[in-house]
Amino acid sequence: MAGSTYGKIFQITTWGESHGCGIGVVIDGCPAGLPLCEEDIQSFLDRRKPGQSRYTTSRRESDTVEILSGIFEGKTTGTPISLLVRNTDQRSGDYGDIALCYRPGHADYTYDQKYGFRDYRGGGRSSGRETIGRVAAGAVAVNILKRLNISLFGYVKSVGPVTIDMSRFDADERDKNALYMPDCAAAKEAQAYLDDCIRNQNSTGAVIECRIDGMPAGIGDPVFDKLSANLAKAICSIGAVKGFEIGDGFVAARATGKENNDAFFIDKNGCVQKKTNHSGGILGGISDKSPILLRAAVKPTPSISAAQQTVNSLGEEIEISIRGRHDPIIAPRAVVVVESMAALTILDALLVNMSARMDALEQFYTR
Amino acid sequence: MAGSTYGKIFQITTWGESHGCGIGVVIDGCPAGLPLCEEDIQSFLDRRKPGQSRYTTSRRESDTVEILSGIFEGKTTGTPISLLVRNTDQRSGDYGDIALCYRPGHADYTYDQKYGFRDYRGGGRSSGRETIGRVAAGAVAVNILKRLNISLFGYVKSVGPVTIDMSRFDADERDKNALYMPDCAAAKEAQAYLDDCIRNQNSTGAVIECRIDGMPAGIGDPVFDKLSANLAKAICSIGAVKGFEIGDGFVAARATGKENNDAFFIDKNGCVQKKTNHSGGILGGISDKSPILLRAAVKPTPSISAAQQTVNSLGEEIEISIRGRHDPIIAPRAVVVVESMAALTILDALLVNMSARMDALEQFYTR
Amino acid sequence: MAGSTYGKIFQITTWGESHGCGIGVVIDGCPAGLPLCEEDIQSFLDRRKPGQSRYTTSRRESDTVEILSGIFEGKTTGTPISLLVRNTDQRSGDYGDIALCYRPGHADYTYDQKYGFRDYRGGGRSSGRETIGRVAAGAVAVNILKRLNISLFGYVKSVGPVTIDMSRFDADERDKNALYMPDCAAAKEAQAYLDDCIRNQNSTGAVIECRIDGMPAGIGDPVFDKLSANLAKAICSIGAVKGFEIGDGFVAARATGKENNDAFFIDKNGCVQKKTNHSGGILGGISDKSPILLRAAVKPTPSISAAQQTVNSLGEEIEISIRGRHDPIIAPRAVVVVESMAALTILDALLVNMSARMDALEQFYTR
Amino acid sequence: MAGSTYGKIFQITTWGESHGCGIGVVIDGCPAGLPLCEEDIQSFLDRRKPGQSRYTTSRRESDTVEILSGIFEGKTTGTPISLLVRNTDQRSGDYGDIALCYRPGHADYTYDQKYGFRDYRGGGRSSGRETIGRVAAGAVAVNILKRLNISLFGYVKSVGPVTIDMSRFDADERDKNALYMPDCAAAKEAQAYLDDCIRNQNSTGAVIECRIDGMPAGIGDPVFDKLSANLAKAICSIGAVKGFEIGDGFVAARATGKENNDAFFIDKNGCVQKKTNHSGGILGGISDKSPILLRAAVKPTPSISAAQQTVNSLGEEIEISIRGRHDPIIAPRAVVVVESMAALTILDALLVNMSARMDALEQFYTR
Repeated sequence: MAGSTYGKIFQITTWGESHGCGIGVVIDGCPAGLPLCEEDIQSFLDRRKPGQSRYTTSRRESDTVEILSGIFEGKTTGTPISLLVRNTDQRSGDYGDIALCYRPGHADYTYDQKYGFRDYRGGGRSSGRETIGRVAAGAVAVNILKRLNISLFGYVKSVGPVTIDMSRFDADERDKNALYMPDCAAAKEAQAYLDDCIRNQNSTGAVIECRIDGMPAGIGDPVFDKLSANLAKAICSIGAVKGFEIGDGFVAARATGKENNDAFFIDKNGCVQKKTNHSGGILGGISDKSPILLRAAVKPTPSISAAQQTVNSLGEEIEISIRGRHDPIIAPRAVVVVESMAALTILDALLVNMSARMDALEQFYTR
Repeated sequence: MAGSTYGKIFQITTWGESHGCGIGVVIDGCPAGLPLCEEDIQSFLDRRKPGQSRYTTSRRESDTVEILSGIFEGKTTGTPISLLVRNTDQRSGDYGDIALCYRPGHADYTYDQKYGFRDYRGGGRSSGRETIGRVAAGAVAVNILKRLNISLFGYVKSVGPVTIDMSRFDADERDKNALYMPDCAAAKEAQAYLDDCIRNQNSTGAVIECRIDGMPAGIGDPVFDKLSANLAKAICSIGAVKGFEIGDGFVAARATGKENNDAFFIDKNGCVQKKTNHSGGILGGISDKSPILLRAAVKPTPSISAAQQTVNSLGEEIEISIRGRHDPIIAPRAVVVVESMAALTILDALLVNMSARMDALEQFYTR
Repeated sequence: MAGSTYGKIFQITTWGESHGCGIGVVIDGCPAGLPLCEEDIQSFLDRRKPGQSRYTTSRRESDTVEILSGIFEGKTTGTPISLLVRNTDQRSGDYGDIALCYRPGHADYTYDQKYGFRDYRGGGRSSGRETIGRVAAGAVAVNILKRLNISLFGYVKSVGPVTIDMSRFDADERDKNALYMPDCAAAKEAQAYLDDCIRNQNSTGAVIECRIDGMPAGIGDPVFDKLSANLAKAICSIGAVKGFEIGDGFVAARATGKENNDAFFIDKNGCVQKKTNHSGGILGGISDKSPILLRAAVKPTPSISAAQQTVNSLGEEIEISIRGRHDPIIAPRAVVVVESMAALTILDALLVNMSARMDALEQFYTR
Repeated sequence: MAGSTYGKIFQITTWGESHGCGIGVVIDGCPAGLPLCEEDIQSFLDRRKPGQSRYTTSRRESDTVEILSGIFEGKTTGTPISLLVRNTDQRSGDYGDIALCYRPGHADYTYDQKYGFRDYRGGGRSSGRETIGRVAAGAVAVNILKRLNISLFGYVKSVGPVTIDMSRFDADERDKNALYMPDCAAAKEAQAYLDDCIRNQNSTGAVIECRIDGMPAGIGDPVFDKLSANLAKAICSIGAVKGFEIGDGFVAARATGKENNDAFFIDKNGCVQKKTNHSGGILGGISDKSPILLRAAVKPTPSISAAQQTVNSLGEEIEISIRGRHDPIIAPRAVVVVESMAALTILDALLVNMSARMDALEQFYTR
């Protein structure tokens, strides 16, 4: 209820702070019989781990996951899977000077207003490290989706003013550059832009895009639990996300019906298909078998070393320059978080959907 | 679970189809003692009622609300409030020819894939009439918020390529033009554009913006139930919405930290304030006392009278021209739906927040 | 959240008061494709309808159900099913004298304490008429269970000191006597006892038992959502229920392990079976394929015409004799309520269970 | 959804198995500002710890709790509190011989039926060690309730045929005898009975009673979330509980209205009080200010060393004698579990109740 639990059937509960013992997640509702080991999860955590390029914080965390429960003889048992990542490089000293300070763009002021005080060390629960629980759980979800032939591919679409050219889209390129952009030329341009930001003690926003292939039609629910609505919540629950689009998104708001409607046709296998995919794979909140395409607007890192005007909790106006260890751009490390939240949402919708029809129910219990 | 229930404490459940007996909503969790009568709700329903301008369907529905339960001696009793709006002008005959057809941009195909069949009359549950339940409940939420000095104001920000000029913003103007735009000049231009669309048997998308004033700081929860995440779900659950923004939204993705950070200062009353509001009133998922500003991208009406290629459920390719009675633009009548969903979300967050602190809990029960 | 919604997948929301417009229920999450008509529901409502014997209130209600949504061409569509039963014989005048009075054994005082005031007409929401929504929804659940070869049979096991003799158990007898007891001799004895109570302006408590046949093994969840725990909540949520037992219940508390353990054996079909059923069909919270057996302790009707000492909301001590129209025993009409709540709980557990295993999930989506 | 999460606002999620790394719980929704340290929790865990008398398993576990998150400077922050108890004395070797066996009265067979396989070591998730998470969270709830002047007192009321005499009730005596009975004479008699059971390689059932003092009136919700219904679920979710009573329970089923109704009167302070408490502190599902009184029927330990007939997962009939380390009676160590589950339920109802009235809501946000 206090917002650390997500999902209906495949339900995750995350906990932990930047400078506490560690970060963890409990997954309840994972189907029994899934082969699962630490490596399956670690490879996802490694994608969001700090210290992998000059654009990420120098905080050194191996982010090693331990499975504490829910696995027996290499398979999930159907009971809760508890995952733990210990913090090892917390340096609370770095944050002593911000104990009273309300950093612009951060949650310091709002936490204080809500709770009366806060764990100010590294942002406490509002730190980006909170996403470790999402990614660890997301890794399990992705593993299940893979068995259903569903795959997700996220990437940075634009960095500040620099956007990838879809005609140069190269999936392999994504993992080769520090900005996680699937377009070599755009990545170079973006790095030049980012280097400029850094020189100016500044940071930049970015757009992440994620594509989901292999979705069957019919997933999602009408009205409040539209698949698009649940994806919107999932993505906008990631810190720093200020906007969400499905399919054409805001472009659809400028389009006409003739442009935006996707014509159906019958393919050579006799299957219903769409000629275009302005819908982004979802019609009426329910998947239409086309790839799902979504985007997240990620704001610039609020922690910048340039001097800023702000106030403290004593009601004084002060000037601060944020030192500590901070990424000048959030998006590259957030790509795996977007994939994770999308995977959790998609999987949950698939599980919920199993009971949508009487014939399936009767077949399940009376075969 | 099948997605017709929304909210945690102030929880609504909607039901009904375009061509069934009617549309309704049950509100559970409304605090006891709120003065409430049909008129309080009717005025909201009237704002989304069809037939008020040449841009809306000619279907004639008075959309008269009946309160079936939960009120005694003019006040809410704390038990469920059941609201009913009877359908009176359903003409199922209009839809006989689409029983088999999968209309582009509609949910016909996806409902069939999910459920095996569908109530095809007027789109059944996927009809825009489904939003009546949202608006009726939203009216109750707005009434409560008013008592907490919180107000919402929604409007059409852009129609196709025509956007309002914020320097000409005139709240009173909103209700004077058929497009619900708070800028007289933009409204005229937009009407010319829309008339063009109609002549071309076409339709147009639009952007709705909503501003919430009077929010206290500290509302919303960290992690998955960020106020921004819950608003994203609320808004994206409205049919035809393809994108969502809070504060600067996608503009923040192109901004730098220096531009996007809102500096705090101390006002003359000694209160913490922000100099700018790029955050849109929410930091770290929790309200920061500035106005909340959100936007929804609404796609063009998929029902257009121009000929379209599509398929039917027999697997045949066909051509259709959608007659029936349809708005050439969805957004104007959806403004009150956006306000309603925002109000429901905000109110629920306020109720959830009451138990966030020990001191409040102790005071509540031991004073 | 305010307690009028029940179930996770097959989720019902009830509303209505004794003397309002009517009583209703919205069922969300009913699988699509179930044949359903008013008669399927009416036959259940008729079992709890007043006025069928001299032991029930003389209030005349036909309790006729209307289906307002969710059915198309005779089958459930997967969208919410809204059911309405209009009140027709409310006589609010009967209750004017209890507007201020706190009747012993009733919820008058507690509602006032919670909400600050109450709809005192006929007990408002705390009236037995509230169970109409449960029974209407229960009828749908029972119809689904029937298709899975699961059946429920409830009856009055004891009335005051008179208990049925299981060796004389006769299912057909149940519907032949006014007390709903499946033992003709016990029913006669119980009627004599009850007539005595009536003569003394008194009422009596009773025990209801319900047996569920055909349950597959493996239904229910470990820990908090044990099938037995959810049944306990379901049954104890019925007004007037003060105790719950599964299997041997409180007898198990006096037994030894040797007596209480049910030995497993292999039957002639090679299936695992239990020699006895002290467990009542549930082990570790999960169904074990034996019949589920549960009991509810129902308190005596608190409305008695004998004079009683009590107080009013003005803080005065008063004496009252409750006239109005009241059953001298609650249990007979509550049998179908117990069956309904059990059916809703069992069905929901069956739906939840569909996603318990990876192999079933893979088969569902990749066959 | 898979049943390891409990509560609406004060929400707990437990995880862990008998022979895994450990047992844990995440508490989400604990109000911020509660002073809390390990000792506050440890004292509760010590009450259920094994090895404290000759009636408990000889497994040696210190059951030491670690707080992993949610506390800063000695107080709860409002974010999730993660608690971990490491297993230290698991001897999986003890259980190798039961890998295939279905022990009578245990969940071996039902887990296999549900999940296809199971962690058989020490019962896995169905072990009594699962309750550690409940007790750790319950300790936090009790600490909060104490600040609201609400206290809980649980004890063993009867052991097999031996029941305490309420006229000899002595709260202090409870902690002085191994059976946790607040009546010295009954405790001695019960111990003699239990010694007999042990000699006969047998075990015994028992009844636990719990009394909650200091409850304000008005807590709990009508219909499905009656306080009594939620307590029933809470208590029946504890392994081995087969029955539940509130107030007079099954005795009410044999009583008349005149006997069972509690007369109201005005006390010398002008407050409404009840002369008797047959209701057990709850009327219409809502607390009536009298002490809440509940009982749980606990079945005999199913693990007995006497030879038993059973089957294995290969479909063979076998004979087993369960060795390992087992308590001959479950109830004494379960008393603190009953208190914990009751405390969690009561606290959650108190938090939910804060938003029941408009006047409280207005006062909260506009004072």
